[in-house]
Amino acid sequence: MPKIVDHVTRREEIAEALWRVVRRDGIRAASVRTVAAEAGWSAGAVRHYFPDQDGLLSFAMDLVSRRVTERVNAIEAKGTVPAIVLRYLDEVLPLDAERRAEFDIWLAFMAQAQAESGAGTLHAHVDTVHEELRGLCESLVRALSEAGLLKDGLDVRREVERLHALLDGVALHAAIQPHRTTPTRARQLMRHHVESLLR
Amino acid sequence: MPKIVDHVTRREEIAEALWRVVRRDGIRAASVRTVAAEAGWSAGAVRHYFPDQDGLLSFAMDLVSRRVTERVNAIEAKGTVPAIVLRYLDEVLPLDAERRAEFDIWLAFMAQAQAESGAGTLHAHVDTVHEELRGLCESLVRALSEAGLLKDGLDVRREVERLHALLDGVALHAAIQPHRTTPTRARQLMRHHVESLLR
Repeated sequence: MPKIVDHVTRREEIAEALWRVVRRDGIRAASVRTVAAEAGWSAGAVRHYFPDQDGLLSFAMDLVSRRVTERVNAIEAKGTVPAIVLRYLDEVLPLDAERRAEFDIWLAFMAQAQAESGAGTLHAHVDTVHEELRGLCESLVRALSEAGLLKDGLDVRREVERLHALLDGVALHAAIQPHRTTPTRARQLMRHHVESLLR
Repeated sequence: MPKIVDHVTRREEIAEALWRVVRRDGIRAASVRTVAAEAGWSAGAVRHYFPDQDGLLSFAMDLVSRRVTERVNAIEAKGTVPAIVLRYLDEVLPLDAERRAEFDIWLAFMAQAQAESGAGTLHAHVDTVHEELRGLCESLVRALSEAGLLKDGLDVRREVERLHALLDGVALHAAIQPHRTTPTRARQLMRHHVESLLR
């Protein structure tokens, strides 16, 4: 199936060009035209894969999801349960330039989806990504619960919601005010929160 | 000073037209052209006040700040301190269509600022709005502390950061997944968090 392989390779090439544009000039600069120029393709050739900017943004978002998933899957489950939980939380916070670029794409993606009238395709896609992160938070709270580490009387479902909201809030602050919510402060805040859940 | 009064009135007219466009069609639809059409003005006349979309978005953001400030100032300081704290938190969460429109502007504004290369004017403006909300969170945690209600050993500065991040996270979730983070759930989550800080 040479044609399919070819398509996959071409999408990867566009992905890499898109990533370079976003890292260098920000997500706002990423258009079919600029990504085509970066990849050394014609705009028409890129448009064959991504007819418009929403398509390109969705693709960028898939790329971010894939990168996060790869990092999360690579985490070693060594040490105490709370230490492992904190390593997972670290991986999804925008604590370096690479992860800040990922977060900027997520932010642009959410803003664009909110600005869509009605239930557009971007909106459905935001839901999917959002549920992935919620699922991670659920696994982490459940791991603490199953290890018998949670304080008595805590409601697991509510703590999943609280952890997920706090994580998104800290990520937002780390991205928009990196001088105030530094990587150290962001990590300390998540550690403090996780510790507040333990007996 | 008839000229100044005139300018203020005209900006108000643009503000009202902008708000109607955002409420009806979303922030994405708000451009110099569409706002001019809504106000019954020429694009050139609007451009006299807001030369580009960033200017318009900054103005929309000022409008949101003003609306939030007015609502927050109207809150009556009756009842227990935790009840008052929760009333304030309620006012800044996007729990109805009106406040969701405000949040969508804030989200678009942040995304646009992040996409700016370097320290642009939008970015400075985001900092200001962000600090206003942070200041509100600080007043609320201090009020609990001064009433002697905080648990022993809690660090006020850290709890301000945690409340602020949680508030932004819950607001984000209420805006992007209103069917999951319903107004009731959002309020319950904030109440649960405030209660977890009390002795």
